[in-house]
Amino acid sequence: MRLHHLISLANLDRDCISRLLDRAEHMRVDSHHGTRRLDLLTGRTVLNLFFEPSTRTRTSFELAALRLGANVVNFDIARSSTNKGETLLDTLHTLEAMHLDAIVVRHRETGTPEFMVRHAMSGVSIVNAGDGNHAHPTQGLLDALTIRQHHPDLATLKVTICGDILHSRVARSDIHALTTLGVRELRLCGPQSLLPAPTEVPGCILVEDFDAAIENVDVVIMLRLQKERMAATLLPDEAAYFEHFGLDTRRLSRAAPGCLVMHPGPINRGIEIAPEVADGAQSRILEQVGNGVFVRMAVLAEVLGR
Amino acid sequence: MRLHHLISLANLDRDCISRLLDRAEHMRVDSHHGTRRLDLLTGRTVLNLFFEPSTRTRTSFELAALRLGANVVNFDIARSSTNKGETLLDTLHTLEAMHLDAIVVRHRETGTPEFMVRHAMSGVSIVNAGDGNHAHPTQGLLDALTIRQHHPDLATLKVTICGDILHSRVARSDIHALTTLGVRELRLCGPQSLLPAPTEVPGCILVEDFDAAIENVDVVIMLRLQKERMAATLLPDEAAYFEHFGLDTRRLSRAAPGCLVMHPGPINRGIEIAPEVADGAQSRILEQVGNGVFVRMAVLAEVLGR
Amino acid sequence: MRLHHLISLANLDRDCISRLLDRAEHMRVDSHHGTRRLDLLTGRTVLNLFFEPSTRTRTSFELAALRLGANVVNFDIARSSTNKGETLLDTLHTLEAMHLDAIVVRHRETGTPEFMVRHAMSGVSIVNAGDGNHAHPTQGLLDALTIRQHHPDLATLKVTICGDILHSRVARSDIHALTTLGVRELRLCGPQSLLPAPTEVPGCILVEDFDAAIENVDVVIMLRLQKERMAATLLPDEAAYFEHFGLDTRRLSRAAPGCLVMHPGPINRGIEIAPEVADGAQSRILEQVGNGVFVRMAVLAEVLGR
Repeated sequence: MRLHHLISLANLDRDCISRLLDRAEHMRVDSHHGTRRLDLLTGRTVLNLFFEPSTRTRTSFELAALRLGANVVNFDIARSSTNKGETLLDTLHTLEAMHLDAIVVRHRETGTPEFMVRHAMSGVSIVNAGDGNHAHPTQGLLDALTIRQHHPDLATLKVTICGDILHSRVARSDIHALTTLGVRELRLCGPQSLLPAPTEVPGCILVEDFDAAIENVDVVIMLRLQKERMAATLLPDEAAYFEHFGLDTRRLSRAAPGCLVMHPGPINRGIEIAPEVADGAQSRILEQVGNGVFVRMAVLAEVLGR
Repeated sequence: MRLHHLISLANLDRDCISRLLDRAEHMRVDSHHGTRRLDLLTGRTVLNLFFEPSTRTRTSFELAALRLGANVVNFDIARSSTNKGETLLDTLHTLEAMHLDAIVVRHRETGTPEFMVRHAMSGVSIVNAGDGNHAHPTQGLLDALTIRQHHPDLATLKVTICGDILHSRVARSDIHALTTLGVRELRLCGPQSLLPAPTEVPGCILVEDFDAAIENVDVVIMLRLQKERMAATLLPDEAAYFEHFGLDTRRLSRAAPGCLVMHPGPINRGIEIAPEVADGAQSRILEQVGNGVFVRMAVLAEVLGR
Repeated sequence: MRLHHLISLANLDRDCISRLLDRAEHMRVDSHHGTRRLDLLTGRTVLNLFFEPSTRTRTSFELAALRLGANVVNFDIARSSTNKGETLLDTLHTLEAMHLDAIVVRHRETGTPEFMVRHAMSGVSIVNAGDGNHAHPTQGLLDALTIRQHHPDLATLKVTICGDILHSRVARSDIHALTTLGVRELRLCGPQSLLPAPTEVPGCILVEDFDAAIENVDVVIMLRLQKERMAATLLPDEAAYFEHFGLDTRRLSRAAPGCLVMHPGPINRGIEIAPEVADGAQSRILEQVGNGVFVRMAVLAEVLGR
């Protein structure tokens, strides 16, 4: 069954997620690593509706759509009528009336993409590019793809996600992707105040001590620390945060040999990750960026039915 | 005779306006309601030059151009040399020297597009996307198209436009379109201070009482009230404005059965229009938005000679 | 030997510069003066990375890429993660990971494009759209092209560049282009405080008196005076600057008959150039703008290997 929207990975089963990852792999091959344009979406129109600025993610979606031959329009919301008091619903219906095929939306409030799906009146596809603390499904997919490229059998893997799990939509989507794909063990690590309640993350192991959390894992995913969350950690400063929850060479040596180092970017060098680790041989950060475009191509082709 | 520019509807005769509306209808059919790209303008370049921000109108023109296969460039005037003291004339000639086919211009000052036509040195086509209080010709065309789709014979229709007529380029272009197409009766309604002098709108009926103005009409076009105009109305607040000049269900019931409700958007819910009317069965607001893209496709194809 | 990057004209020999100018001429003819799209770069992606806003130059590069059939993405650096503390290097590597073919970069700091070339890990081509006071190579090429169109044999020409030579990347690139192409005489004129040391511009003649500098030259290139440099000139105001270093009809009459008047734009009318000269029969300013697009098409086709 084809997806018409992509809002969250929470409701997708293993077959569905695997099929999206397979499509992304095919996009990589068919586009010769992004150097050739496929014409799957010629004549279709994708609109980027970013209420939160994110040049990276917007650019990744824009490249994905262009490489499939689609038209892309960036709706500059900062200058639009929503600033003149127009409601989100009126913006949605106005855009739909212009006959778009897909709207890629990012919004600081949880639930905005789902709200748009519920109220859409046309056949437009909604793709979530990140909403509040809720979900960032293409990030979850690209992280899973990156891991799968190195370890085709996820059932053998131990993975740790470290940082501000509580407020991270990246973590939520990673958790959905990785548990659905059946990783052997998923550990969540961070300051206690930034960890979710155990009941919210069934099947995951919560660990406050990063040295313990990284022990023998095959993959470690570091999260970006938003500066405004520092206070909640009860740690005095960035140096203290790094000492407790930063990934440096010493700590990485506790993980399994060849442990993959991942981060959704942009990285805070010296806050959550040491430069030598970010740039080191085990870092997969740039592979994640590259996979991001292929995953978004796959998602757009999926929801637009080609 | 083909148009080379579109500045105002004031000088266009009935045949010319009808031909543009016919082209827009064809664009709708040929593009399968905007889902297919026509390649009429492949290799041609359209530049959006918006001195006033308007994400909706800019996006509508951008989609229109892309759907005809043209290249579109958004010239970000807020960051351009006009801010360093470059004159409009130098900007025009510089853009012309880059060999554009069409410039779509919006400017807060009346006459800017006409000024550009007079000073253009190349074959570039100028399309007015709204200048001061003067004209918004594609809005006038899309409103006429929307009405014509429901009532092919405009000679039988009574139409009311309500709101700040005096400062509205939408009203001016609607008046030109509808009188030229020969509507039976055109009534203009609003606070006295926001109505034009009778000599400026020959053939129109000026009415201050909205209850009288809407009596038995087939179409009512509501205008957006700019907040800064509230003072001029001598009304104490938005609630009072709505009471006198807002369109609600009770008032709409005074119009002819099936009266079309139109608004150029973005709407101020509860100020000039009640939500239940804006979203009601008689509302044609979203049809207007959809027709906007087809009208702009027709206009671009016309001025670029395909 | 094909260029893979274009950072400066300093290291290019006469054959290489001539070949680029020949390509630009061919682009002009093949694209029918920019009215037809060539499909040399179909499926390739060019990203504009402008740390300094420059709508004109960005638009010129955007048009050049679109006219070759490439995809173009404008990376809005003002809203990107570099504002969240991401380093230039991380931005570069992130963009590379998205598989771009070329990055067009403008930056207020000298050496940024060169830095990017040194640290690029993929095959991405870097094109300098202006860095600090250092270089603006496509401007140097378009100026040389404009002169060559009027005077195929540059060896017979006397040229004067007038204005803030010291801080001008345009002047630097013009000097490289024109000396490499072997102009007979190149004079640099400006307030003493805005002239480079003689050892920095070997082969050029430094002149403080504009009347002497313009005497009998075939080409005069006026530079834009940045307002913030006025203080350094020790001149009291713009009128005094114009009196000493402005180009008016009287002064132009001292040059050779038919002397070409050039300016990189945007012009400050009445500061460095009189309106009647900027708009006069000898002005080549708009030809420069037009040639800019063809030169950038040639450069993109060159570095992208088509």
